[in-house]
Amino acid sequence: MANVDNKMDNNQLIRKLAEKKHRDQRKLFLVEGEKSLLELLGSDFEIEFLVMGATFHKHHYSLVANKIEKGNIRHRIIDEAEIKSLSTLEHNIAGIAIVKQKENIAPKIHNEIMLALDAVRDPGNLGTIMRIADWYGIRNVIASEDTADYYNPKSISASMGSFARVNIHYTNLFSYLEAAPFPILGSFLDGSNAHTMSFPDFGILVIGNESNGISSNIKQLIKHKITIPRFGKAESLNAAIATAVILDNWIR
Amino acid sequence: MANVDNKMDNNQLIRKLAEKKHRDQRKLFLVEGEKSLLELLGSDFEIEFLVMGATFHKHHYSLVANKIEKGNIRHRIIDEAEIKSLSTLEHNIAGIAIVKQKENIAPKIHNEIMLALDAVRDPGNLGTIMRIADWYGIRNVIASEDTADYYNPKSISASMGSFARVNIHYTNLFSYLEAAPFPILGSFLDGSNAHTMSFPDFGILVIGNESNGISSNIKQLIKHKITIPRFGKAESLNAAIATAVILDNWIR
Repeated sequence: MANVDNKMDNNQLIRKLAEKKHRDQRKLFLVEGEKSLLELLGSDFEIEFLVMGATFHKHHYSLVANKIEKGNIRHRIIDEAEIKSLSTLEHNIAGIAIVKQKENIAPKIHNEIMLALDAVRDPGNLGTIMRIADWYGIRNVIASEDTADYYNPKSISASMGSFARVNIHYTNLFSYLEAAPFPILGSFLDGSNAHTMSFPDFGILVIGNESNGISSNIKQLIKHKITIPRFGKAESLNAAIATAVILDNWIR
Repeated sequence: MANVDNKMDNNQLIRKLAEKKHRDQRKLFLVEGEKSLLELLGSDFEIEFLVMGATFHKHHYSLVANKIEKGNIRHRIIDEAEIKSLSTLEHNIAGIAIVKQKENIAPKIHNEIMLALDAVRDPGNLGTIMRIADWYGIRNVIASEDTADYYNPKSISASMGSFARVNIHYTNLFSYLEAAPFPILGSFLDGSNAHTMSFPDFGILVIGNESNGISSNIKQLIKHKITIPRFGKAESLNAAIATAVILDNWIR
């Protein structure tokens, strides 16, 4: 009887954690699908509970034995159809983990390259930007309070596992940048040519909102204006694309 | 009475053109929203019919007078709420055009840089890639027959107006590339370093499917394998991001 109740509780909790309100209340979030679960198991995130399908369990048997069983992580193997029906992803039969959110504390930084997100609103864009950050070895991202929720299942999924390696800190971005003792960079139409300018050794690249770009008070704090040279006629590149191209020019 | 019938016909047609079947049958597609309509009016696409809201009409009065009224383009100003209810976009009150598709003919190319899409399935990705192509001055894109439909409203919208400047040609991509007299490039994990390799003066960059990458028969045709240097731990970059970074390295 206890088991049945437990199962219902867990399923209910998984469904609830698709919503920000419940994630915020409980300081938990969902990690879904094979790729993200494997990255999760290699990270220092604390897993509260894990449901797996038989195929995932079989394919990753030694990892499951070492990490989950030895680690005393509460888990259960359930029907793959049930995983599919519980998951926010379309084709997930691998599994779903309920995971503790990390504390929202300002990172200790050491002369490194970082990103600042100024109201990036789309969870998919946020996840894609975290994936790009991870590709370029960035460990810390500072986000304005009106940036999308990193723990949204769409962000986690779009990050393709990079959620496990890149830290995000939500704060008043203007105050953070105003006090920042390192160079602040941003992309503008009238900035220095990203192909020829000399980038600072470290600093923070501000990425603006998808529709409105960088907000006007934060613009004033940006000393290093960068322009990606354009060879055709598109008016702009989207936020994630511009981030990748600038980082590629900065870090090369 | 004729007007009423007409209006119903046009509204029905707009609704139908959201579906590929009807776009293919009629060789028509939809252009929706202010930005896309403005680009459309500056292009050589033939407009069959245009509905506009009063705000769009007022803001772009001289353009409307010159292009639409003088150009004898059939048009009507309708209620903005009606545009919103007809549009596939969420917030479109500017207008919707019914536009003739271009003929699917192989482009005449002149020692230029092109893209080849090998089963890019997501219309949003396709549109984003067309926008990147336009930024880097690329005029021609060759697509496999199983690539997403360029005339899908989501592709048109994601291209942010670049649909009006970049041509796409659907064909058997393997046969096209096999016969191609120019260098063929693609992104691989074990290729040459994009930051230091010397790129050919012109050629075609193959972009693979979102999940499976470049198909195995097309891989054999790629002589120039490129790798974007990685400084962190993400396994890969998504197709549109990789396209932008490689083009930036190629064209710089």
